[in-house]
Amino acid sequence: MSLCVSLDVMGGDQAPSIVLDGAELALQEVKDVRFHLYGDKNLIKSQLSKHPFLSSKSEIFHCTEVVTSDTKPVDALRRLKDSSMRRAIEAVAEGKCDAVVSAGNTGAYMALSKITLKSLDGIDRPAIAALLPTVHGYCIGLDMGANLECTAENLMQFAVMGDVMARRMLGVKNPTIGLLNVGTEEVKGHAIVQHASQLMKEIPDINYVGFVEGDDINHGVADVVVTDGFTGNVSLKTLEGAAQFIFSTIRNTMESSILGKLSYLVGHKSFKNIKNRLDPRKYNGATFLGLKGIAVKSHGGADAVAFANAIKVAINLAKNSDTLNLGQEIEEKIKEL
Amino acid sequence: MSLCVSLDVMGGDQAPSIVLDGAELALQEVKDVRFHLYGDKNLIKSQLSKHPFLSSKSEIFHCTEVVTSDTKPVDALRRLKDSSMRRAIEAVAEGKCDAVVSAGNTGAYMALSKITLKSLDGIDRPAIAALLPTVHGYCIGLDMGANLECTAENLMQFAVMGDVMARRMLGVKNPTIGLLNVGTEEVKGHAIVQHASQLMKEIPDINYVGFVEGDDINHGVADVVVTDGFTGNVSLKTLEGAAQFIFSTIRNTMESSILGKLSYLVGHKSFKNIKNRLDPRKYNGATFLGLKGIAVKSHGGADAVAFANAIKVAINLAKNSDTLNLGQEIEEKIKEL
Repeated sequence: MSLCVSLDVMGGDQAPSIVLDGAELALQEVKDVRFHLYGDKNLIKSQLSKHPFLSSKSEIFHCTEVVTSDTKPVDALRRLKDSSMRRAIEAVAEGKCDAVVSAGNTGAYMALSKITLKSLDGIDRPAIAALLPTVHGYCIGLDMGANLECTAENLMQFAVMGDVMARRMLGVKNPTIGLLNVGTEEVKGHAIVQHASQLMKEIPDINYVGFVEGDDINHGVADVVVTDGFTGNVSLKTLEGAAQFIFSTIRNTMESSILGKLSYLVGHKSFKNIKNRLDPRKYNGATFLGLKGIAVKSHGGADAVAFANAIKVAINLAKNSDTLNLGQEIEEKIKEL
Repeated sequence: MSLCVSLDVMGGDQAPSIVLDGAELALQEVKDVRFHLYGDKNLIKSQLSKHPFLSSKSEIFHCTEVVTSDTKPVDALRRLKDSSMRRAIEAVAEGKCDAVVSAGNTGAYMALSKITLKSLDGIDRPAIAALLPTVHGYCIGLDMGANLECTAENLMQFAVMGDVMARRMLGVKNPTIGLLNVGTEEVKGHAIVQHASQLMKEIPDINYVGFVEGDDINHGVADVVVTDGFTGNVSLKTLEGAAQFIFSTIRNTMESSILGKLSYLVGHKSFKNIKNRLDPRKYNGATFLGLKGIAVKSHGGADAVAFANAIKVAINLAKNSDTLNLGQEIEEKIKEL
């Protein structure tokens, strides 16, 4: 039986269209997958008429409620019992689907995932882990926005989870783990990062390299960059904004002179390669790490290409769940602490 | 009498050479300026032999101690009474110099500046304000690293200071003020940004636009971006790292094919313009905002070009101090709260 991914069709700035367009794009690459679509059935049906292939691979589950970007997590938990987000997650908890993807409200998505899918044994706070581009390839950044305030113990657990993810998903043998701070010297930072750094030094069999700074992310100084969800979310989005800004500056500058235009024509393929390498949409799809089921978060502002990528991340995690077995290894490592 | 700038010659990763090289570069552009050089006199003398023009414009003040990157601020305050950093700041407090520039330990520099130059009346915590590039030109980001933990009241005061700086230094008539957060919706963020946002709404005559996200910095959504020093420092350095990473990717990709190389040759001037526009060194030189004297912080890893830029920021502030009069206006605005 092919894999099944449940989609919160109503989540994200441009839902439901980009969710369905993204699913169609993902299907073109990965054919042996089915979808459970959660949301307003009339809306979904009217959109699906554009996508006969997706339609043939999907089942619609009507939901009467929607978690919006300004829904408080507590309301998503207690009040909205029939939201598309909740029911898409429940499909994984009930074993009907292998993974869930949503571009909706991050706080609500994490809260519902924790309640519904449960945290791994020993993990106090699951985290959002994203792949970030570096000069060497990728690093894993966590937490990218689930836990806005973190204790030193939370950060230590993120280090353990990031270590396992880097070994299993990036295939790094002895991943370097850095803790994001305002300087690399041991005296730098506030009490929480100071304490967390001491705790990380005591984790057995981990390659903790100490504090790293913002510019070390792209420089690839560490395979795993640990931080609280507030700082992580801001720096992730800062990276995206910088990439967009730089590309628009390049385009405008090249277009403003004849030689610039000519250069762009001649180097067209190189420019395309550069954009492919750095396009933030290619990194869309962050993993909720520390849960007993697979949940992937897409950027709220994702377009169809970006959302398709988030679906592919979910499919990859689900396909390789037996061999990756992130959960079991994380639980074993946490027990050793 | 020409302006005088005091330099902490021993501060920064590559001190003293880049400090003196930077001063020489700045002198080539701004000729009517003198320097007081604080540091080890033998070291300074041996380096100055390379710079006869700078030598003729400088006076050396021997200091026996150095604040290093791992000196704790409390030690810089209580123990190191003859540090080059302290004495360079004292030169401003004593009226011998008009402004001080250091690339040294940020925490120590701010602590010494507060004790020596004093905070403006009503300002609890001075902040580090930096210019950041946007699609429209520049925005002001603060705090970029002075106060790692901030109360809602601190953030509100940063908003007032940023507003005055944007009006006076950027010439923006009714600057938009944004508070950095993980989302733009009112429900987003932890208790401190929630409270700070309420306080900012109540500041009279300020154009507070609510929460902004990391990608909004470069997109120029606000003229002033307010945040705590931890998040600000990480995002500032993340921006720098992203720019360096993207440029190295562009260079490597262009160099890897014949058409790429040709394109680079043809568009040489455009590439140079792009680099000039986005070069983080051009934005080096952050202002300590909220002090009774002028202190400018250079990036610790600055090269001579970047350090020269920090000196030019200090000269500009000192030259226009009567007309800019940031301090007086900030004090008046804070009184109104």
